[in-house]
Amino acid sequence: MLEQFKVKDVDAIFVQEAPLRETVTAIFKKMGVSDSDAALGADVLVTADMRGVDTHGVSNMLRGYVAGYTSGSLNPRPNWRIIRETPATANIDSDTGLGIMVVPKAMEIAIEKARNVGVGMVTIRNARHLGMASYHAMMALEHDMIGTCMTSCPPSVLPTWGAEPRLGTNPIAVAAPADQEPAFVFDAATSTVAGNKLGLARRLENNLLPGWVADVDGVPIMEEAAPPAPGYEGPATSFLLPLGSTRELGSHKGYGMGMIVDVLGGILSGGGYGMNPGRPNFGHYVAAYSIEAFMDVNEFKRTMDDMLKNLRTTPPAKGHDRVLYPGLPEAESEVERGQKGVPFHSEVIDWFKDICGELSLPYDLS
Amino acid sequence: MLEQFKVKDVDAIFVQEAPLRETVTAIFKKMGVSDSDAALGADVLVTADMRGVDTHGVSNMLRGYVAGYTSGSLNPRPNWRIIRETPATANIDSDTGLGIMVVPKAMEIAIEKARNVGVGMVTIRNARHLGMASYHAMMALEHDMIGTCMTSCPPSVLPTWGAEPRLGTNPIAVAAPADQEPAFVFDAATSTVAGNKLGLARRLENNLLPGWVADVDGVPIMEEAAPPAPGYEGPATSFLLPLGSTRELGSHKGYGMGMIVDVLGGILSGGGYGMNPGRPNFGHYVAAYSIEAFMDVNEFKRTMDDMLKNLRTTPPAKGHDRVLYPGLPEAESEVERGQKGVPFHSEVIDWFKDICGELSLPYDLS
Repeated sequence: MLEQFKVKDVDAIFVQEAPLRETVTAIFKKMGVSDSDAALGADVLVTADMRGVDTHGVSNMLRGYVAGYTSGSLNPRPNWRIIRETPATANIDSDTGLGIMVVPKAMEIAIEKARNVGVGMVTIRNARHLGMASYHAMMALEHDMIGTCMTSCPPSVLPTWGAEPRLGTNPIAVAAPADQEPAFVFDAATSTVAGNKLGLARRLENNLLPGWVADVDGVPIMEEAAPPAPGYEGPATSFLLPLGSTRELGSHKGYGMGMIVDVLGGILSGGGYGMNPGRPNFGHYVAAYSIEAFMDVNEFKRTMDDMLKNLRTTPPAKGHDRVLYPGLPEAESEVERGQKGVPFHSEVIDWFKDICGELSLPYDLS
Repeated sequence: MLEQFKVKDVDAIFVQEAPLRETVTAIFKKMGVSDSDAALGADVLVTADMRGVDTHGVSNMLRGYVAGYTSGSLNPRPNWRIIRETPATANIDSDTGLGIMVVPKAMEIAIEKARNVGVGMVTIRNARHLGMASYHAMMALEHDMIGTCMTSCPPSVLPTWGAEPRLGTNPIAVAAPADQEPAFVFDAATSTVAGNKLGLARRLENNLLPGWVADVDGVPIMEEAAPPAPGYEGPATSFLLPLGSTRELGSHKGYGMGMIVDVLGGILSGGGYGMNPGRPNFGHYVAAYSIEAFMDVNEFKRTMDDMLKNLRTTPPAKGHDRVLYPGLPEAESEVERGQKGVPFHSEVIDWFKDICGELSLPYDLS
């Protein structure tokens, strides 16, 4: 995440991992979620926070989930089930269960299938938000597998040359294990920025950068722009652009990648694409590929180490100190936040105090 | 492809599909390729031309292939073989056979596996150029499957914040069938532009657009720049940027997607990543997913129609006439070029005349 979108340490209240995990688990339980699902949901959210993925951590997601349980749009005890199945595939109806709890189960099925026949691929319809997509992809790592996760989201992104949002931010995550180096963990929206980043920009009062959004006529805004004021609820004043921003810079590629996610996570789940009238919020896709099915696992991991080291030791461009790769800053964040805790804005802390009060839970985060 | 990179019709010599196919087949045969592989190779190249993908058609690829056969870097009669196999996967050594002929065979294996267990996934090591990646992905369409193809290329692209190319242009192709609408066919480099587009720019004497390349210090060039003069063979004056161009615009996403291709097409093939010392030119990855394994095929195709129509009827942005989707302009090009022929620059026609003379083949293209 860009530095400007981090809570500044000086403004932050640091919360330790263990009490954060306990509090989030307790809140999920109060929503009617089973003990094991509550702990699983807390793991998905807190893992995002520990890895520095604040957009998909507790501060940015939990209150929306609580609102969903309260309004009844989220089913705390989903009767999820496999609708169709082959040796390498399954299609699951998640019964409007929260994705952060149902999708790990789908990934376990994919991993088991990959163990049996080399690949496992599972689509999930009738689905809800799955949190940080790479959580599910990373589940493959300890099994010496490559993991993938995609999620077809409600529309907020313009097609290239379009003036009306018709695609979700539709992220793609891929995780592959290495030996000594931190694993390769890619997780990115196919829009220029994740939708959640606009919410964060609003909360932290940061400008939107050039190329992030278009105006209401669909014309990409190529200079910095102020986000809508906090609390603004009027008509949209701008729309997200696909990765690439303009046709000349390659936005048709970001647009097409968003469509890939709508095809695999949306249509192939049987739940329809993002714009599908009447579709529930989300459709998901997870897959696991057994490395052993293709080649020697140790050789794979050694070669991954070589590639990752080769990339992070690339001579840096003028004005930069070093080159990163996806998964490296997140692994460094896990170490740092394991020591210092997760930095939360005071406004998030206030919300925790309020919700713990409302739910008659002890507050012990700070 | 951007209009500026098309051969202008007024400068073009139009060549009909049938004689083009015959001439290309005859040239491959003269290189020592079998009759069936020669026809297959011609089909891959001419399909690219018919679909308007000039970067990967006859004009841009064939002379490189002829040079490869002549120098011995391409094996005209490869003894390709499966090294490891499971019900859903295979790993193939292509014995330095040209990818445009070996990869379709790998895709047939993937399709057969998908028919049996739901998914088929094949990696190809010791490999050479595979032409237009979407050709292989599209093979899945007539089987009511979704097809994927990726190819890990030699390094030419900078990692984000890097000053030395360490990734290939590493394209990703995905094809999914519809009912009445032209199929969804995505095929794009994970760099801002395909490497071949720089060659075309040089030949057509067009400028490089902002965000396509960085200078030798790794600093993205955000204004138009002249390409190196035709015939320039000196040290590189610029490097390709990953999709997104700058970190602020999301180049870490294009960079990460390029790495996904290096992991799946390169390392998982056992052939190593693009920068791997001593690696042959390319590593490939193809996959087929049976739609029937997940859901009803007719419902899938009807929903695809809905989505594709929904996207191409998006109200256009100011200054544009209509919204496209990946596969739509290519399908329109097939119709148009089926009538008018493929437009070639006179310099390409001269090459055909020369090579037909050298190989004692009749020249009958124009």
